[in-house]
Amino acid sequence: MMTDSSPSSYPVDALNRLKRRAERGHYDHETVHGLLDAAALAHVSYIVEGWPVCTPTLFWREGSRLYWHGSNSSRMLRNLSAGEPACLTVTHFDSLVLARCGFNHSADYRSVMAFGHAKLVDEPAEKRQALRMMVDRLFPNRTAGLRQSTEQEINATTVLAMDIERVSAKVRAKGVVDDEEDYALPVYAERIPLTLVCGAPEPCARLLPGVSRPIGLEQYREGLPLERAVLAAHRAAYGD
Amino acid sequence: MMTDSSPSSYPVDALNRLKRRAERGHYDHETVHGLLDAAALAHVSYIVEGWPVCTPTLFWREGSRLYWHGSNSSRMLRNLSAGEPACLTVTHFDSLVLARCGFNHSADYRSVMAFGHAKLVDEPAEKRQALRMMVDRLFPNRTAGLRQSTEQEINATTVLAMDIERVSAKVRAKGVVDDEEDYALPVYAERIPLTLVCGAPEPCARLLPGVSRPIGLEQYREGLPLERAVLAAHRAAYGD
Repeated sequence: MMTDSSPSSYPVDALNRLKRRAERGHYDHETVHGLLDAAALAHVSYIVEGWPVCTPTLFWREGSRLYWHGSNSSRMLRNLSAGEPACLTVTHFDSLVLARCGFNHSADYRSVMAFGHAKLVDEPAEKRQALRMMVDRLFPNRTAGLRQSTEQEINATTVLAMDIERVSAKVRAKGVVDDEEDYALPVYAERIPLTLVCGAPEPCARLLPGVSRPIGLEQYREGLPLERAVLAAHRAAYGD
Repeated sequence: MMTDSSPSSYPVDALNRLKRRAERGHYDHETVHGLLDAAALAHVSYIVEGWPVCTPTLFWREGSRLYWHGSNSSRMLRNLSAGEPACLTVTHFDSLVLARCGFNHSADYRSVMAFGHAKLVDEPAEKRQALRMMVDRLFPNRTAGLRQSTEQEINATTVLAMDIERVSAKVRAKGVVDDEEDYALPVYAERIPLTLVCGAPEPCARLLPGVSRPIGLEQYREGLPLERAVLAAHRAAYGD
């Protein structure tokens, strides 16, 4: 199968090329990685006994490899550990769009859909490193100050890795778009922007006296968008 | 296969029973429907040529039936129209949890995972009704004031319906939980609450003079949670 690619883009073929609304599709590293690194949560899909199963999970990226984790007993990970086809999707939900007819009601969003084969990470050093990254990519250098993980904890955690084989980013960012003749109608239309924001941080009630919030968490502040904090943290810790 | 169910709960069997952290699982109508009706966006997964494909989409619920839509050319809908196994997942992402060790870092969330067979809605009256509900469940009575949909628009839209066959809701809402001995450590821990909030509505720049925001959209106001607005709208239009 023919694929299109360049050093700064992922390959494109029948699996990931946008067929509907192709103008919304992006395949370059900058767009794809930027949208992934700005999110903490993904939805991972896999196939279990003929059923598609879609699970929300925290995830992280290193190069073209995506990671997520769970306990050894979870169904998802049991099935994926042999190298199962998987799809990891990240969605930034940016607005609801109220148009002048039902057909043009819509939403603005930025999403990434990544395909690959998920494999168990069982080499101890890689696994430890991946689990550190899970924390440090959200909160730079945090693991250095934590009680270190025990071997039992590491063993009780399953880490999955998926090299991105195909990926597409899809962006709609245009608000209200009506049919030209409909703008003459006396109908109200608007865009309602949406943002996932941080609330005021809630310190644990059992902090020891004198333990205060460490520097490096400033971006996680009441009213600030989560995506800005997460992207800044990822770039501080691991670059673009 | 044995199933557990009651008039106010969905059946439970091997497909949807939570195996990991069973205490987080809920199967009753009230919890499941409440979480679904408070969300505008879902992730729908289906299988295309052996790959799981996970797509974000607007969705809505009527009784135990879930609906979503797309154009006739979308890959998802071509494959689902014959009655394909599908999974629709809704996730409310409520917090990031910073604990005293890496292992106890977590997130609070409320999610619903629904399984069934997605089928094309092609009976014209049901399709029109479903498309009205897509708008009116978010913005009560809005379709009555819109330019009505043309037959061409209705034909160009594909509506999918999936009766819920199995479903589970999963809730984590406990913030920081550390191992008892770790509370003695001088490590900072906190919960960062997250909320998807509305921004200030952006009226279309091409509104006719004198056209103002209709009543019924008050809940979509700067700083208010989207989920509160969506749940209130759904209940105003369609009850629990």
